Amino acid sequence: MKVGIIGATGYTGQELVRLLQNHPEIELAYLGSSSNSGAVYEEMFPQFSGLSSSMDAGSGLGTGKLDDEQVPDLDVLFCALPHGFTAGRTAQWLNRGIKVIDLGADFRLKDGAVYEAWYKVQHPAQELLPEAVYGLPELYRDKIAEKTLVANPGCYPTATLLALAPLLQKGLLQKDGLIIDAKSGVSGAGRGVALGNLFSEVNENFKAYGVASHRHTPEIEQQLTEAAGAELLVNFTPHLVPMIRGILATIYAQVTPGVTEADLKACWQEQYEEEEFVHILPEGIWPQTKFALGSNHSFLQLKIDPRTGRAILVSVLDNLVKGASGQAIQNMNLICGLPENMGLKMRGLWP
Amino acid sequence: MKVGIIGATGYTGQELVRLLQNHPEIELAYLGSSSNSGAVYEEMFPQFSGLSSSMDAGSGLGTGKLDDEQVPDLDVLFCALPHGFTAGRTAQWLNRGIKVIDLGADFRLKDGAVYEAWYKVQHPAQELLPEAVYGLPELYRDKIAEKTLVANPGCYPTATLLALAPLLQKGLLQKDGLIIDAKSGVSGAGRGVALGNLFSEVNENFKAYGVASHRHTPEIEQQLTEAAGAELLVNFTPHLVPMIRGILATIYAQVTPGVTEADLKACWQEQYEEEEFVHILPEGIWPQTKFALGSNHSFLQLKIDPRTGRAILVSVLDNLVKGASGQAIQNMNLICGLPENMGLKMRGLWP
Amino acid sequence: MKVGIIGATGYTGQELVRLLQNHPEIELAYLGSSSNSGAVYEEMFPQFSGLSSSMDAGSGLGTGKLDDEQVPDLDVLFCALPHGFTAGRTAQWLNRGIKVIDLGADFRLKDGAVYEAWYKVQHPAQELLPEAVYGLPELYRDKIAEKTLVANPGCYPTATLLALAPLLQKGLLQKDGLIIDAKSGVSGAGRGVALGNLFSEVNENFKAYGVASHRHTPEIEQQLTEAAGAELLVNFTPHLVPMIRGILATIYAQVTPGVTEADLKACWQEQYEEEEFVHILPEGIWPQTKFALGSNHSFLQLKIDPRTGRAILVSVLDNLVKGASGQAIQNMNLICGLPENMGLKMRGLWP
Amino acid sequence: MKVGIIGATGYTGQELVRLLQNHPEIELAYLGSSSNSGAVYEEMFPQFSGLSSSMDAGSGLGTGKLDDEQVPDLDVLFCALPHGFTAGRTAQWLNRGIKVIDLGADFRLKDGAVYEAWYKVQHPAQELLPEAVYGLPELYRDKIAEKTLVANPGCYPTATLLALAPLLQKGLLQKDGLIIDAKSGVSGAGRGVALGNLFSEVNENFKAYGVASHRHTPEIEQQLTEAAGAELLVNFTPHLVPMIRGILATIYAQVTPGVTEADLKACWQEQYEEEEFVHILPEGIWPQTKFALGSNHSFLQLKIDPRTGRAILVSVLDNLVKGASGQAIQNMNLICGLPENMGLKMRGLWP
Repeated sequence: MKVGIIGATGYTGQELVRLLQNHPEIELAYLGSSSNSGAVYEEMFPQFSGLSSSMDAGSGLGTGKLDDEQVPDLDVLFCALPHGFTAGRTAQWLNRGIKVIDLGADFRLKDGAVYEAWYKVQHPAQELLPEAVYGLPELYRDKIAEKTLVANPGCYPTATLLALAPLLQKGLLQKDGLIIDAKSGVSGAGRGVALGNLFSEVNENFKAYGVASHRHTPEIEQQLTEAAGAELLVNFTPHLVPMIRGILATIYAQVTPGVTEADLKACWQEQYEEEEFVHILPEGIWPQTKFALGSNHSFLQLKIDPRTGRAILVSVLDNLVKGASGQAIQNMNLICGLPENMGLKMRGLWP
Repeated sequence: MKVGIIGATGYTGQELVRLLQNHPEIELAYLGSSSNSGAVYEEMFPQFSGLSSSMDAGSGLGTGKLDDEQVPDLDVLFCALPHGFTAGRTAQWLNRGIKVIDLGADFRLKDGAVYEAWYKVQHPAQELLPEAVYGLPELYRDKIAEKTLVANPGCYPTATLLALAPLLQKGLLQKDGLIIDAKSGVSGAGRGVALGNLFSEVNENFKAYGVASHRHTPEIEQQLTEAAGAELLVNFTPHLVPMIRGILATIYAQVTPGVTEADLKACWQEQYEEEEFVHILPEGIWPQTKFALGSNHSFLQLKIDPRTGRAILVSVLDNLVKGASGQAIQNMNLICGLPENMGLKMRGLWP
Repeated sequence: MKVGIIGATGYTGQELVRLLQNHPEIELAYLGSSSNSGAVYEEMFPQFSGLSSSMDAGSGLGTGKLDDEQVPDLDVLFCALPHGFTAGRTAQWLNRGIKVIDLGADFRLKDGAVYEAWYKVQHPAQELLPEAVYGLPELYRDKIAEKTLVANPGCYPTATLLALAPLLQKGLLQKDGLIIDAKSGVSGAGRGVALGNLFSEVNENFKAYGVASHRHTPEIEQQLTEAAGAELLVNFTPHLVPMIRGILATIYAQVTPGVTEADLKACWQEQYEEEEFVHILPEGIWPQTKFALGSNHSFLQLKIDPRTGRAILVSVLDNLVKGASGQAIQNMNLICGLPENMGLKMRGLWP
Repeated sequence: MKVGIIGATGYTGQELVRLLQNHPEIELAYLGSSSNSGAVYEEMFPQFSGLSSSMDAGSGLGTGKLDDEQVPDLDVLFCALPHGFTAGRTAQWLNRGIKVIDLGADFRLKDGAVYEAWYKVQHPAQELLPEAVYGLPELYRDKIAEKTLVANPGCYPTATLLALAPLLQKGLLQKDGLIIDAKSGVSGAGRGVALGNLFSEVNENFKAYGVASHRHTPEIEQQLTEAAGAELLVNFTPHLVPMIRGILATIYAQVTPGVTEADLKACWQEQYEEEEFVHILPEGIWPQTKFALGSNHSFLQLKIDPRTGRAILVSVLDNLVKGASGQAIQNMNLICGLPENMGLKMRGLWP
């Protein structure tokens, strides 16, 4: 199976290469980058030293050189580009029989007007929106398998939806007053060079950002609205943690009257008991982002505060793996009929 | 003015020494430590090399040696001990005419039963509780000045109360549904040696802890109840950030119907416009913990989310300074009739 | 093939579990820990959630419980214990037909007197020293394959020997005046709880330690003496870097008169061109520890300073993988006749 | 005394503001920045909130606005610019009676040809080189006091010279074979935005850079040559530590035959016993960068390795304080006849 990556030099691109390297059934046949065309991949990223020599010379990658986005014939193409760079070119790839998995935001929102409101640009290919499936396998596995265009979810939405969607769908939580206080490592900001991402500005520092304005808000609301069966709004506040990888979402929700902690956990248990990548932790063990470091695994815990009656849910994952590239490969496995966990078994790096 | 520190080898003890070093009107006349009695302070903490030679030989500190908690005659004694170690000995110090500033939790809660419920030990000196004043100068300055026993507030409560107390007092926020999602650097856990505070366990990691059970909860509720004039409960969730110093509290509150963002800011403005250590940041600039690093300054910002109508407040300070030792010195200045900012003018260390 | 780990709760023990999880030809049949006997492994280390259920119930590990060091019949036993805890029990394991790979220091030094001089205890099993092989495959592959007792090298020695041993063996460097200035992440100090390893003491800090007294010194000298064919001494200074994983050794050496930079690189090239885990970086690219993070790969670069004529060599690896558990698995593969890179193909985690 | 800063928005510029804020005898009368002219300083750097309102309105700084490098009449001007931006304008400032302290590299090298060889540009004002004094007070105090143009030393040279200069001057070390293996925090790279300084690239990473080519090499050699009384060359290798502030230099030197550890320490003792900012640590305590964090203090230790006979010296300071802005203020105090330690008494921030 030939797969390729467009946007191979960003952090999610590098992470795709790292994980695909360990995948037994694929050939990494194409690495594209408009900004670094012609550069030798393993010289830019020496952690991959010796990689190209192990590739098929015929694939072009024997040279290790990055291509200028002239996508060859492939089975699957991963698009690891910022929003707005993928949608306009997707139709031609699909027409050529290439399955497309977009790690950007272009196909996540089903309503082009919502996209435009939050991303401040017109959607370049609204006609494709109905073709795309929201690729969060643990919640939408059946819908994903038959699709050729997958919108890979955002990192914050993945963490949030794993915790909230089943509970809302079962009516165990109230739709009003959901608060998602989320914290992310710096790699979520990507490899782009900006003052605010300098080590000297970030280390020994912590801040909120995008308060009441982050673009993952409508994505979360769209999927939670679908789960709850009725429109809802959330407060979503992201924060920047002085670490590279990891997302932790602390979620506050009012439970439906009469619902107990055991009810909430039973719902999670039922939803996830067969899942390899979602772990409900034993009583008293709260998720830490490092449990997930470098792996496709995610972790959940909850408690109802007996004094206020409010539920506190914590959800953890690695933003570059389950929150991006790992989930993308999980989706690839699904739409290609491979075992869903293939190439994704590695556990978190501790310490 | 002769001042001393009991518990001089913990992090708040060291921070008191650092700040008092820079205070022009005091003589650091006593450093006590039960566990390190006889050790030479500047050999334990070489950042203070040469310190003892600059001290008055007659004070005993010319030797630089830590004393075994035999408190000499002093004007002010700072107690930088864990809860339970101070209260039982306080009466004798007060009787000797020594003003006491307790950086621990022993005198913060006005109700001995609440103390016992949360700290799991009986209060050793309930009769002193009415004597103690809660030492948060920006809110209770007038009450503090005349006192000889000051309960220095906890770090999380200080950050929370600076943001919420004035708004609740003016009735601008609803008393129900207050959520305080707080994040702290690791120094808040003190200098005690524990697996969970090892660098390899904390770095590149983020977690919640003490979920719905942290001991600062009743302290926050006591003071907010006083401000609001009616009993209230909060959800308080602390988190551990892989950094040494700093607290950021993200607070969610329902505004009283009709109240605007401008109303909230006007209330803050009125409360703090004369304050040297509390800064309401300009529109669009959100607090970062590093603004406060190593300084007694604190920073506030807020916004009402126009979509949900909920107010989001962010409050930042250095947990070891405004959240502990700096505020203790501010209290010392107050109860000794010195300018409140004396020895506390240094600004945050950036980068 | 049944393998087990004694000392499974330390950092090298956890790392063995993480890597062996990904190894297709072994069954992880035994996890021992004297201090945590009876604890459920995946509750202590939730990054492995779900691990025990995937194990063979018959193996005992279906329960996930740590055993009290009652080693069952195994093909290979990894000993991940501090020095002094392994040697005394090794003979009985060998007699039972279990191959032993010791990640500690007990079998690295060939001379029991040198061991005693540096480790301050008598060696508990000097008679076994001739049986042990020093397990650095890239340098001693032929000797390792036939052995049943492997002394897995120290992390600093591995980094140092990969750079220096071939050059000394070929006579390209002078034996006098070798200086090894090495820097390590904090995980090298292990999971033991000590003040000096607290986050608040280590972060934003850098220091030398064990100056002119570190126990890896005689191990380095023993192997370099063998390579050079004549006794030599080195200056070895380790430093602590505020990061978790990674070792970088900066090595200063006088070249033999007439030797050029090209000669040195040609020697490395010849030694390592077939090696999967040792990479000589292209001109101008200097190793960074993150190239190796979480992987068994190592990286080399050198330069002769044209002004002083001295060679500067830099060697990088992950102290817990190529410097410990990864190399141990490489040795296991070797002594068990498996492909040497089996289970070790993952590349470094970046970012 | 009116002082100003040109280049006030870089890290050394911010650090000057922080330290001068605490200086009792100066008025901060001018903040210049070509790239941020017109911006309000305390909005760019909220750690200084409220700063401008405490300034003299007549000074222009009551507005808090950065000026476009139109230097007013001042007593002292600090130039915190990259090399090449200061020298060409210095003569006019000196002619106006303004004393100039250059934190950049323009006046450190006495030979314009050496400057050109290392900095790859012609020196813009060679005629001023004889006017400048190398401003390392502990070594050259007498020469500095009478000067009006001070070349503030580089951070690496300051750390290196404090350790080596007195020992070479007394002939206790051999001139050949000096090796300086230095490690710095990331703030040394300044506030300029570059991929290599991103948090995600630097954290959990360690590397050498500028191997055998760093521009501080000729500065170190110039001053050591002067101390030794004979030309010498050094090997100088800087490394990047994942921390913000701090420099540690590990120095290897051959002692002159017959010289003992006690001789070396006696020399240091004699040189520094009256110094407030240089501390020779007690036997067995090795410097850590955090001892110096945020302070103008520096720390020394040494040992002769009894096995190799080589001396190992370690020198530590904060690169932004004693290695830049703090030393600049020390120089200001000197050339203005103020107590040398004025405004510089704060000790290191620990933890």
